[in-house]
Amino acid sequence: MMRALFLGRFQPFHCGHLKMIRDIAKDAEYLVIAMGSAQYSHTLENPFTAGERYTMISRSLSNEGIENYHIVTIEDLHRYAAWVAHVVSQSPKFDCVYAHNPLSIRLFKEGGFQVVELDLFEPERYSGTEIRRRIMEGEEWRNLVPGEVAIVIDEINGEKRLLDLASK
Amino acid sequence: MMRALFLGRFQPFHCGHLKMIRDIAKDAEYLVIAMGSAQYSHTLENPFTAGERYTMISRSLSNEGIENYHIVTIEDLHRYAAWVAHVVSQSPKFDCVYAHNPLSIRLFKEGGFQVVELDLFEPERYSGTEIRRRIMEGEEWRNLVPGEVAIVIDEINGEKRLLDLASK
Amino acid sequence: MMRALFLGRFQPFHCGHLKMIRDIAKDAEYLVIAMGSAQYSHTLENPFTAGERYTMISRSLSNEGIENYHIVTIEDLHRYAAWVAHVVSQSPKFDCVYAHNPLSIRLFKEGGFQVVELDLFEPERYSGTEIRRRIMEGEEWRNLVPGEVAIVIDEINGEKRLLDLASK
Amino acid sequence: MMRALFLGRFQPFHCGHLKMIRDIAKDAEYLVIAMGSAQYSHTLENPFTAGERYTMISRSLSNEGIENYHIVTIEDLHRYAAWVAHVVSQSPKFDCVYAHNPLSIRLFKEGGFQVVELDLFEPERYSGTEIRRRIMEGEEWRNLVPGEVAIVIDEINGEKRLLDLASK
Amino acid sequence: MMRALFLGRFQPFHCGHLKMIRDIAKDAEYLVIAMGSAQYSHTLENPFTAGERYTMISRSLSNEGIENYHIVTIEDLHRYAAWVAHVVSQSPKFDCVYAHNPLSIRLFKEGGFQVVELDLFEPERYSGTEIRRRIMEGEEWRNLVPGEVAIVIDEINGEKRLLDLASK
Amino acid sequence: MMRALFLGRFQPFHCGHLKMIRDIAKDAEYLVIAMGSAQYSHTLENPFTAGERYTMISRSLSNEGIENYHIVTIEDLHRYAAWVAHVVSQSPKFDCVYAHNPLSIRLFKEGGFQVVELDLFEPERYSGTEIRRRIMEGEEWRNLVPGEVAIVIDEINGEKRLLDLASK
Repeated sequence: MMRALFLGRFQPFHCGHLKMIRDIAKDAEYLVIAMGSAQYSHTLENPFTAGERYTMISRSLSNEGIENYHIVTIEDLHRYAAWVAHVVSQSPKFDCVYAHNPLSIRLFKEGGFQVVELDLFEPERYSGTEIRRRIMEGEEWRNLVPGEVAIVIDEINGEKRLLDLASK
Repeated sequence: MMRALFLGRFQPFHCGHLKMIRDIAKDAEYLVIAMGSAQYSHTLENPFTAGERYTMISRSLSNEGIENYHIVTIEDLHRYAAWVAHVVSQSPKFDCVYAHNPLSIRLFKEGGFQVVELDLFEPERYSGTEIRRRIMEGEEWRNLVPGEVAIVIDEINGEKRLLDLASK
Repeated sequence: MMRALFLGRFQPFHCGHLKMIRDIAKDAEYLVIAMGSAQYSHTLENPFTAGERYTMISRSLSNEGIENYHIVTIEDLHRYAAWVAHVVSQSPKFDCVYAHNPLSIRLFKEGGFQVVELDLFEPERYSGTEIRRRIMEGEEWRNLVPGEVAIVIDEINGEKRLLDLASK
Repeated sequence: MMRALFLGRFQPFHCGHLKMIRDIAKDAEYLVIAMGSAQYSHTLENPFTAGERYTMISRSLSNEGIENYHIVTIEDLHRYAAWVAHVVSQSPKFDCVYAHNPLSIRLFKEGGFQVVELDLFEPERYSGTEIRRRIMEGEEWRNLVPGEVAIVIDEINGEKRLLDLASK
Repeated sequence: MMRALFLGRFQPFHCGHLKMIRDIAKDAEYLVIAMGSAQYSHTLENPFTAGERYTMISRSLSNEGIENYHIVTIEDLHRYAAWVAHVVSQSPKFDCVYAHNPLSIRLFKEGGFQVVELDLFEPERYSGTEIRRRIMEGEEWRNLVPGEVAIVIDEINGEKRLLDLASK
Repeated sequence: MMRALFLGRFQPFHCGHLKMIRDIAKDAEYLVIAMGSAQYSHTLENPFTAGERYTMISRSLSNEGIENYHIVTIEDLHRYAAWVAHVVSQSPKFDCVYAHNPLSIRLFKEGGFQVVELDLFEPERYSGTEIRRRIMEGEEWRNLVPGEVAIVIDEINGEKRLLDLASK
């Protein structure tokens, strides 16, 4: 039975991620959820810390009753030729990779892994970029993330953080 | 209810760790297991990768039926004045720290955290240093680690790795 | 009596900085002037080295008769969740922060510090960006910086440096 | 007799580089070819690894019968004030620098080196940017690089790599 | 008139440092006090943060009425061939170096600087190593540091920090 | 025909290295000489810069008439699980590894490479450690290195460098 790796930055974790994870986890012995750019936070591209993103994911999956997963945090080394080895070293063993970022797909293919290129689910809505834009412009975003994620963002006063960072 | 942080390098995860985690987890909403020196492996001090150590822990706890925990990997930045902030940023929220390393205890106290200084359980036997020494010298070590840890070490051919690294 | 931190990149130090420092220093036991991005130089955004910027500040304040200050240089770690702890570790003790950069303001607020959000003084003129633009386009910039800063820029042949870096 | 340093990123090595090297090597005791941004690869700006670029250069020069050269790889430290010292420490001794990048020229001049500012040979055609653009857009690029470079790019399936990285 | 650089780690600042600085400052236009290993703290070798050491120095010199100095903090890059360029970039201009560490002396000599090799003043007593040893073993140390340094160490509870770090 | 990788730190390059390279080069299409710890210099363990070591090797091999080699410099990342990928990315393609350092042997074996474990040639004499000891203690060392290496060490005043670094 397959051990899968699912790659993302999860800024924030959203319903598109959840749907994909639900589908993959069904067929997997377990799913390693690898959170990239783990050292970054408090920017418009990467507003949330690794710990906050970890909490978003674990609460959402707990709420869904999904249990066969592991979360690992992956710091970006900016040395892409060594990146696959780095991810492998930080993760429980996996033999199949699910990704949609072109760089990740390419690197894992060159590394000899079986890669499933994910079709994003309604990417114009379910994307971190879109959700961050909506938060910053005061539009509705809560319907795009699992309820647990909205709670985390409220607990850390995340809307205010993004608005502050975007202020000039 | 308390959210606890438990700190260690887990080179390897052993029965002393397991006993302490069992005790802490009973009283905690959840336990964050923070694995330090995450970027290191393949040395006599740090033979196992973060991914291998992650697997040792998650299989052992699963075997014990412990479920209220999160594993986070913490890279060593060698800037101790920023280390507590770094751990906080990589972890789900916690409000009490369990540690036995003097540096960790000191840093978290200076950071204003409640710290419980752990008495190690039979430290002359249940210590990573002792277990690595036994592996390298061909002595009995399997009785000092959970059964699942011995399986992981066998799967990765860990005895041979340590012997190779120690060869001169 | 308050010990204040004043944050900036000072590329270059200009009359707007000087005016703000003069105001803050009057009410402070002392003022820690924290110079960010200390490792960078020789780019269009960060043309001057930390040492050159240090000299601009110390000569200008000496000329003004301001003495109750300390200059500290802060390397950018690109780990914003640990940045406040990093600044604290590099600085004499302070209890109030003066800043105008949204990221700095946000981070120090999350760190529990009292933050005064500075209104920049005539920001369309007194800004590093504007002064660098004027130097590169051969416009008048000397009236925007303290006389001592112009002397430093001349001593290091700074106009030529910026023109060279901007050449294509 | 002069020992020369020639600086570039060589993404990829092209006929403009080759022509310049041929001219410099004629007058030099030897030529140190310093390949910058050595740690980067697999991006649109820096698609090829240092090892791949090394192979492009050494095969092309071998094919030309040029032998009096050394290739050194230079990691970018993003500390430009220390960059000349870094290049010097990684290279066989040199006393004259050939460069066309404004930053490199400026830094080596400030470091007291004799710098020859190269006029690029037909830069609208013979430039890494142009060649990468042509590869990504499926236009003719093979006539802009030495034959050996096209062979290397084919061996590593480089056209596909660039197309994959550029895919959205 | 000479602009001098004085190098040290100042763990802690002691009477030997003060005596040397007093002597150098008399003959100098100004003295740049360069504090090495600035990113380290909370270890037995480097117990104090850069900010704490900065405070020790500035209060001691203020108490002595010495004013013609600048303190700069120097992070250790562990690339010694680029270290002189790094120090130069972080410091106001200097033309003479005072040092006693063999590595520093050697590097600045190779960098073409005039170096004065300091004879330490009673090094068996006035040395950071000795003072840290005394603190850890509960012996008398206060007579080896300026009064202001003892006050700083007390304010930060420094004796307890060293004892905690040394505990096993 | 085999493309070989030969690993070492070459502090300094000595007759043992030369003998092994001569043997390997005879059977190889080409030999990649990978110089580790490239960023280090000016310490007792790593006295010579990468550039100085590069010169030692290239002059010695030129003197021997060996031409089918490439020198690459490898910075130590202190992340051994990614080290093989790092070496691969910095080197022309190779399919067989020659090494004697236990860590290197282990890492390349785990990476799936064919590894030849070299028996050092008279290691009690032909070793960097022994040669550095002899230089520091004023004993005869020139008979242990190729003549070209002694010339390089003399040109850079290397005996004096080691003596200075060893002085207390």
